[in-house]
Amino acid sequence: MAASSSPSPSLGPLLALVEADMAAVNRLIVERMHSPVALIPQLAAHLVAAGGKRLRPLLTLASAALCGYQGTRHQGLAACVEFIHTATLLHDDVVDESLLRRGQDSANALFGNKASVLVGDFLFSRAFELMVADGDLRVLAILSRASAVIAEGEVLQLQIQNDLSTTEAAYLEVITSKTAVLFEAAAQVGAIVAGRPEPEVQAVARYGMALGTAFQLVDDALDYSAAQETLGKTVGDDFREGKVTLPVILAYARGDDAERTFWRRTIEDLEQTDDDLGTAQGLLRQHGALADTIAAADRMRAQAEVALAPFADGPVKAALIEAVAFAVARGY
Amino acid sequence: MAASSSPSPSLGPLLALVEADMAAVNRLIVERMHSPVALIPQLAAHLVAAGGKRLRPLLTLASAALCGYQGTRHQGLAACVEFIHTATLLHDDVVDESLLRRGQDSANALFGNKASVLVGDFLFSRAFELMVADGDLRVLAILSRASAVIAEGEVLQLQIQNDLSTTEAAYLEVITSKTAVLFEAAAQVGAIVAGRPEPEVQAVARYGMALGTAFQLVDDALDYSAAQETLGKTVGDDFREGKVTLPVILAYARGDDAERTFWRRTIEDLEQTDDDLGTAQGLLRQHGALADTIAAADRMRAQAEVALAPFADGPVKAALIEAVAFAVARGY
Repeated sequence: MAASSSPSPSLGPLLALVEADMAAVNRLIVERMHSPVALIPQLAAHLVAAGGKRLRPLLTLASAALCGYQGTRHQGLAACVEFIHTATLLHDDVVDESLLRRGQDSANALFGNKASVLVGDFLFSRAFELMVADGDLRVLAILSRASAVIAEGEVLQLQIQNDLSTTEAAYLEVITSKTAVLFEAAAQVGAIVAGRPEPEVQAVARYGMALGTAFQLVDDALDYSAAQETLGKTVGDDFREGKVTLPVILAYARGDDAERTFWRRTIEDLEQTDDDLGTAQGLLRQHGALADTIAAADRMRAQAEVALAPFADGPVKAALIEAVAFAVARGY
Repeated sequence: MAASSSPSPSLGPLLALVEADMAAVNRLIVERMHSPVALIPQLAAHLVAAGGKRLRPLLTLASAALCGYQGTRHQGLAACVEFIHTATLLHDDVVDESLLRRGQDSANALFGNKASVLVGDFLFSRAFELMVADGDLRVLAILSRASAVIAEGEVLQLQIQNDLSTTEAAYLEVITSKTAVLFEAAAQVGAIVAGRPEPEVQAVARYGMALGTAFQLVDDALDYSAAQETLGKTVGDDFREGKVTLPVILAYARGDDAERTFWRRTIEDLEQTDDDLGTAQGLLRQHGALADTIAAADRMRAQAEVALAPFADGPVKAALIEAVAFAVARGY
């Protein structure tokens, strides 16, 4: 979004620092999606072409760079992290019945739910095969735990869907589990392959957790505020599905009786007319719910910066700090 | 089906030999399905209550017993194998839109497709967490490869669905991948924890592969021939979904033009009336398609028996030979 020449924070510096590694990761992703079963590479090619920010593998590469790692193991593990993420995206789109993903028709819209479920399973299994080939039980423990927590977070999200009594704490648990834990694991893995002592592994883990939480908070704000073309998914998806995200929790808490009736009808009963998304957007702005969601993300940005304190200043650390500023700035 | 007092082959002797181990596995399955997210143990309790034959964990336990293993690692790994299987069942039912599983309402019918996809992901991740806790990279390699092959087999099955030009070879590849590979892996793992030399590990792997193939062949025959109450799933599911299984491949190959028109309408175009399942069953019997499918399973039974030749005769070996005879006898 922000041009690299502007003063707005960007992912550019971080991407530049790990450019060669990321090219290797992209090659690995294509190679390792291969299967003799034609539908798998077909669907995979669609996903690869759709691209996406590859934030999670970027985090593994950047964390390894921050820790002075010189080998190539981080490339394979970054590909694993992206496979786990892609598998969860495929299953999310089935669960959410989304028609757009990364600005293109979603895989389930093009290939059907059945293929999305099964190719998701394949990518997830392939991720584990690749981790096993890497052979580090500590890495395996971190990524298998992260996968289980992601699934728990997704189920929890399903449980609280359409429930306006959801607390901010329950919402935070959902986004921590479904999103931030994989950022945390992605960052941890980079420090582990570099053989860093535990306090540094924990420091990058905290950075990853804070970045992931900020990222999801901003995503949940953008679902109401973004322009369709910049979001890369359908604006208002969360609203149409009755997802109870922080903006809605805040607006509901701050609304009068008539507004609460509106939220109950649209979010709990899913009775929506064409005008309702616009009305919801108006209420969110009126009550400062989007601004406060971004403010919560900005507090995470500050935590992420603090987490990196144990590391000496340098270009990678500066780029990591800019990356989390970028994640938050997307929301404005 | 066969009472233990009848001369029909049964799983009874094998179950009796590993009874204490299986009780431990059942406890582990319940324990390790636990999650603070309420919907997960709820759905899990439904699956556990539905029971099922637990054939795959039984195979891990029996293989370890055949190899003289004295420890308890096989119990945890047997639970992992069952978790992988349960995860694939949950996703299968979503893919197949099945309403019955193990004689009860399927999880997706009761809890919805979303919960089935996500709880399947959870069980799959939990299986990997438990394997990682066991800490044997060779076991991890076998089970992660098996998981990837299962997913490939399921996608291949989706590809050939409604396609009457499917060859017997393609069909065999599907059932080998989607079913037999997990039987193979389950058996292998038992020999590996027992620390047996490679030829014995490969021997139990061949046994598991042959048993799994026989099991699926018979399942595909039973889908047309079983009584509803003994099958534990909906009779005619494969037909209604247009699955091209061996009975259909054989009847189509042996049918006249009118019959082929019938198969194309029902299997390829999925235009079916209430009488069509009965007509299909009649054609399968008339052409010996069910009998020949069972005969193919019986050849697998013979291969399974040969595979066990390296092992000394004894009660476990005899019970394993009877188990594969049982798997085939279900079909008569």
